[in-house]
Amino acid sequence: MTDYLELAAPGVKGLRPYQPGKPVEELEREYGISNIIKLASNENPLGPSPLALDAIRQELDQLARYPDGNGFVLKQALSTKLGVPQSHITLGNGSNDILEIIVRAFATPDNDIIFSRHAFAVYPLVVKAINAKPVETPAKDWGHDLDAMTEAVTENTRLIFIANPNNPTGTWLAGAALKAFIAGLPRHVIVVVDEAYFEYAIDPRMQAEGYPDALQWLDEFPNLIVTRTFSKAYGLAALRVGYAVSHPGIADLLNRVRQPFNVNHLALVAASAALNDAQHLDKGIHLNAVGMQQLVEGFDAMGLTFIPSVGNFISVDVGKEAAGVYDALLREGVIVRPVANYQMPNHLRVTIGLAQENARFLQSLQKVLA
Amino acid sequence: MTDYLELAAPGVKGLRPYQPGKPVEELEREYGISNIIKLASNENPLGPSPLALDAIRQELDQLARYPDGNGFVLKQALSTKLGVPQSHITLGNGSNDILEIIVRAFATPDNDIIFSRHAFAVYPLVVKAINAKPVETPAKDWGHDLDAMTEAVTENTRLIFIANPNNPTGTWLAGAALKAFIAGLPRHVIVVVDEAYFEYAIDPRMQAEGYPDALQWLDEFPNLIVTRTFSKAYGLAALRVGYAVSHPGIADLLNRVRQPFNVNHLALVAASAALNDAQHLDKGIHLNAVGMQQLVEGFDAMGLTFIPSVGNFISVDVGKEAAGVYDALLREGVIVRPVANYQMPNHLRVTIGLAQENARFLQSLQKVLA
Repeated sequence: MTDYLELAAPGVKGLRPYQPGKPVEELEREYGISNIIKLASNENPLGPSPLALDAIRQELDQLARYPDGNGFVLKQALSTKLGVPQSHITLGNGSNDILEIIVRAFATPDNDIIFSRHAFAVYPLVVKAINAKPVETPAKDWGHDLDAMTEAVTENTRLIFIANPNNPTGTWLAGAALKAFIAGLPRHVIVVVDEAYFEYAIDPRMQAEGYPDALQWLDEFPNLIVTRTFSKAYGLAALRVGYAVSHPGIADLLNRVRQPFNVNHLALVAASAALNDAQHLDKGIHLNAVGMQQLVEGFDAMGLTFIPSVGNFISVDVGKEAAGVYDALLREGVIVRPVANYQMPNHLRVTIGLAQENARFLQSLQKVLA
Repeated sequence: MTDYLELAAPGVKGLRPYQPGKPVEELEREYGISNIIKLASNENPLGPSPLALDAIRQELDQLARYPDGNGFVLKQALSTKLGVPQSHITLGNGSNDILEIIVRAFATPDNDIIFSRHAFAVYPLVVKAINAKPVETPAKDWGHDLDAMTEAVTENTRLIFIANPNNPTGTWLAGAALKAFIAGLPRHVIVVVDEAYFEYAIDPRMQAEGYPDALQWLDEFPNLIVTRTFSKAYGLAALRVGYAVSHPGIADLLNRVRQPFNVNHLALVAASAALNDAQHLDKGIHLNAVGMQQLVEGFDAMGLTFIPSVGNFISVDVGKEAAGVYDALLREGVIVRPVANYQMPNHLRVTIGLAQENARFLQSLQKVLA
């Protein structure tokens, strides 16, 4: 047996794994530099609520026990917070796990799965892994083109992924348009509204402009799944907690595919506790808004164009192939995210950091581009 | 859309999720009793090494960061400990994740996947989830019948699962027989040797009787995958860390299917630290041997037969349908594991606990059976 690829499942043969943001330790090892800042993975610069840390410390004598496979405590907390029954909730090892579970529960190699150009890179990955057919629709002003997505639907379409807001573009869809789109879908199509950056987009300004909370439509559209995460605004990316909210019939199927202990115990208790700290969440959202303004002004001052974003990140056009700029920033100790794999070769995606991190990034960018 | 089952992938329609051991909190909620002992999930009664707890405490300021998707530090520690290159290792969110990744990487609905009667319940689950064909071979003295497994191989066979020792029977295969079995397999068949309970079986007594470390055969058999876990002897079930060791060509394919952040950050650092505490590991293995003797003597005194086990658990025949005995034990505040789903309706599986837990279980069993 010399070629293992011959034995691999068909979808796996062509699979190229997701490329994460470069970890700080890796840059230290490879380049031998220190004092590094990482603005590459849309992580919360404030970290999680102190309540989450307390919850972890209190459970350190429970590590030999398997997690509660039903995630009762976290589901109860989410149920209260969101106003949905526990039977509507599916817990995931991050949103990534949820997206994979959805595809595995509902799609086969005979199905088309639709997503937009420049949308989150995990969508095509989970589709290809099961050898289903990825259908990428064109973008409109860097965002999702709902008309193009409607036109792409066939009798073989089983799933549509909508990121709202989208990563890495930061674009968003207003409630009226998105609702009309979902209402117009045939009954055999399940639509996943991925709200990983929801918390950043619900400030009063965005709500006034029509950014929707898709949970409000669950009763109306039984073919709707809304996904969220604790990795962004809740500052718990290290622990891997995401969730889906859907009709209980869908949740039942997702929970059949879900691994019985997919979310670990410390993750369950930390996420439950973090839900109780609205003040910390608000502080992070405010910091993000101020930092976004700082970057936008910096880009304007440098004469760089960018895609207006409602997330905790922004994609800036560096005016040329961005790979070299990314490398030069690494040598300055600044990690951002190249997005050539999103068909955005001239952009870099930068996470909003602390004020001093944003300032250092802007200075380094100016130096590198000079 | 009234019937979501119509939209589900074929394997998912018949899927019944894994039934975990009953959590202590659930029994408290349902029965309103306290002072509960749980001997239901083969958890280490000593808990993990204190080094693991220290490692977690030191990383609590890193929770907003994504885990290292490559798991560099843990792979490095495992590589040193096991004497295999890092390129041979695949990390999983528990062994369960590893087993699922293996099936998804190598099998399709056209493939047969072989496992033994009374073998670990997750094997048929991961097979059914992808709609491959589960092939269950008969047991021999409650353990794997390697001749029957060899006979079951067809041109469509892609995977064989061997649990050594097996859960829930505690049976094991000697090195010579297992090696001859693997050597006799055709080249298109990948064999997974699941060594979740490996650490309990490697005491000098077992090694003298021929219990093998399957890692020694990796160079010889490129179609071999060995899986292990930190959930049992290392006492870290709450954190979900398992791993596979294989030819790097196989590891490459497994890592393509693996979710990029499948093992969370606290799990990575705790597992790495736990590997450095050989003394704690030995203490747990010794405690287990003494406790096993305590239960065996207790069963003998009650005239109950049991399956001799080299794991950290033992399955006892209660002489009648065990479901009622299980329920009666719950009311006594003692959680053990019914194994009717393993086609062992008269057995209960009991985890070896602390001496006082073992004693209380034996007293409760005697009372309930009286």
